Amino acid sequence: MTKFIDQLNDEQRTELKRQLAIYRQGTQEIIPTEELEVKIAKSIIENKSLKIKLGLDPSAPDVHLGHTVVLNKLKQFQENGHTIQLIIGDFTGKIGDPTGKSIARKPLTDEEVKHNAKTYFEQFAKVIDMDKVELHYNSKWLSKLKFEDVIQLAGKITVARLLERDDFEERIAYGKPISLHEFFYPLMQGFDSVELECDIELGGTDQHFNILMGRHFQEKFGKEKQVAMLMPLLEGLDGVEKMSKSKKNYIGIDESPKEMYGKAMSIPDELMSKYFDLITDFTLEQIQTMKEQLESGSLHPRDAKMLLGKTIVRMYHGLEAAEKAEQDFISVFQQGALPDEIPVVDWNGDREIPVIDLLVDLQLLSSKSEARRMIENKGVKINGDRVQDTKLTVSITEGLIIQVGKRKFVKINR
Amino acid sequence: MTKFIDQLNDEQRTELKRQLAIYRQGTQEIIPTEELEVKIAKSIIENKSLKIKLGLDPSAPDVHLGHTVVLNKLKQFQENGHTIQLIIGDFTGKIGDPTGKSIARKPLTDEEVKHNAKTYFEQFAKVIDMDKVELHYNSKWLSKLKFEDVIQLAGKITVARLLERDDFEERIAYGKPISLHEFFYPLMQGFDSVELECDIELGGTDQHFNILMGRHFQEKFGKEKQVAMLMPLLEGLDGVEKMSKSKKNYIGIDESPKEMYGKAMSIPDELMSKYFDLITDFTLEQIQTMKEQLESGSLHPRDAKMLLGKTIVRMYHGLEAAEKAEQDFISVFQQGALPDEIPVVDWNGDREIPVIDLLVDLQLLSSKSEARRMIENKGVKINGDRVQDTKLTVSITEGLIIQVGKRKFVKINR
Repeated sequence: MTKFIDQLNDEQRTELKRQLAIYRQGTQEIIPTEELEVKIAKSIIENKSLKIKLGLDPSAPDVHLGHTVVLNKLKQFQENGHTIQLIIGDFTGKIGDPTGKSIARKPLTDEEVKHNAKTYFEQFAKVIDMDKVELHYNSKWLSKLKFEDVIQLAGKITVARLLERDDFEERIAYGKPISLHEFFYPLMQGFDSVELECDIELGGTDQHFNILMGRHFQEKFGKEKQVAMLMPLLEGLDGVEKMSKSKKNYIGIDESPKEMYGKAMSIPDELMSKYFDLITDFTLEQIQTMKEQLESGSLHPRDAKMLLGKTIVRMYHGLEAAEKAEQDFISVFQQGALPDEIPVVDWNGDREIPVIDLLVDLQLLSSKSEARRMIENKGVKINGDRVQDTKLTVSITEGLIIQVGKRKFVKINR
Repeated sequence: MTKFIDQLNDEQRTELKRQLAIYRQGTQEIIPTEELEVKIAKSIIENKSLKIKLGLDPSAPDVHLGHTVVLNKLKQFQENGHTIQLIIGDFTGKIGDPTGKSIARKPLTDEEVKHNAKTYFEQFAKVIDMDKVELHYNSKWLSKLKFEDVIQLAGKITVARLLERDDFEERIAYGKPISLHEFFYPLMQGFDSVELECDIELGGTDQHFNILMGRHFQEKFGKEKQVAMLMPLLEGLDGVEKMSKSKKNYIGIDESPKEMYGKAMSIPDELMSKYFDLITDFTLEQIQTMKEQLESGSLHPRDAKMLLGKTIVRMYHGLEAAEKAEQDFISVFQQGALPDEIPVVDWNGDREIPVIDLLVDLQLLSSKSEARRMIENKGVKINGDRVQDTKLTVSITEGLIIQVGKRKFVKINR
């Protein structure tokens, strides 16, 4: 196993160490590290790129910063000359839910799969060089399998091994049903690695079991085993749950500079250094310096967070947009001024309207009781004047500016 | 559900009761009886035959009396105009063992499957009218299933339900591995019933789980559910284990009249009435009468067993052969005479040989110690004379007859 490492000359040995240090940064677990070393050594000696796999669910193509934890790692491999294999798991997406219980999981059409894949790729292009990426749709090989092949595949794994997966174990323990077809999802993910002879598979720590299936089946099919590289899961803006679209605690990489910056400012202080680690292009040294400055008090947490917001905007919209977002933030939030651009809303309603009805009609607040609370908490301004009375009647005029909280503005167009 | 039963006129109701009584005879469990009644009622009203399924394993085509428990029940359905569906489970037979662990389970070729099926049918023809039987090979539909279809099928059953099968439950409990492909055997058996729209599936009580799979999947696929009819398992000649070829405790229906009769005489007394019940064509009344005679002492158990032996030979070789087997038995075993036909063995060995070596060389006994014990127990005769001395040297002459125990004879040919 160590033969490739033993063959390295000094220069190559330095290169191995350099690459390893990069791949290890921020990574939660490498299974096993020794095999990763051998694979890199071999790639250096033979001057051959490694195949780095990332599997994608074609049903939810919105990419947020949580995904970039893995994308940034992929980018590092790509920058060192390795080949990224993106696999769209369209085979199961096209089947839908065979139990018929989940109305939400409708089978995807070919067109929907293609459209969602395109959406992914456009977003990924902001991080990795998509021209150098291998694209695969796993229906290409999975849809060809016949019952006989499926039995051969199933014969290579035990029921007990599958039941070890955390969520299966839990459901068995609590008497919640597991449909037999669910056992096939990890099998398919494993078989994809057999088919594409992947060297390394990346994923979040929640993919631990599924990625190890790749190693299992590659071995059973007499192939070289892939290395599992597990990245930490990024908590969302709430600081508690994993960042995800359904939890609404995410920053999408397609969001506007202003929205990105604003959301970044709402990240809990204690998560800041994790965000710097996992989703920015800061080096280990830069992050270390910043942590020391925060501890010594020479850097204010608010300023660190502003740097985080600016960095995120810079990565996805460029430096100019980042500087503008920062300036806007400073003027609105720190100086209490209005932002440069305020959304304009056409008004066809009454000329005179109770302020509470107005706030609800403009969808600035979702109910009258909420609108009342916001006024009582001094959170509503009209043309810069704080509304003091919940019973106020407002005369609607062209260009009237209504502000709710710190960041919601609307300008009336009559 | 009772609508068909309610529609029956008096004559039809009598016919329903008549058929039910026949099907119930000797049957261990009907799941559920009410549905069987409805199905028969419907078949009477619509003058349509029911489809009665029996699944066969194509790898072991030797038919013994254990199998005839089910065959006799099938015959009753056939005699009442219903249709037997024999299903050769060739699909799995042709796959072999996907784990590669069992060398014994080599994949069967098409020719082997055909040959084994033919062997079954020739033997079955002794019980049922094979001209009226529907023959099916389940590879016809199972081999057409693609991965997607398999997932749809698997989505219709839970892991917990499969783990309820006794042998799976036991293996999980004892930490013995279950390969995932094994979960598919009951699924396939169930899907066969969907495909053929079976009304009733027959099997031993050990098929309880698998036959209920048919009901499960028929329901999931929107079909009428089959009724499970479970027959008791017949203990073999040892009186303990289920009759099976591997346990060597069986009477094959292809065996000679003499072998059949002889083996029948070794059935333990306490199993006699079960054998009469399950594998003879005796009516309930005849069996009842016999039981009473045995209890009152007017029938000797040995005579009852001779009747059983004669009946078995009659069913598979005809009355004449049965009477001859009985006569042979009486003359050999009861009068100590030699049977009409003795196997002849060519002898090329020494002219003078110790009796113990002779018995082992002729393969009448498997070891010298066994031969010694048999002589000490007065179980060896040469030309009708009991051998008294384990050290005896035998002079080999043409036509010498060696007898071991009651039923093993050999004649020497020099």
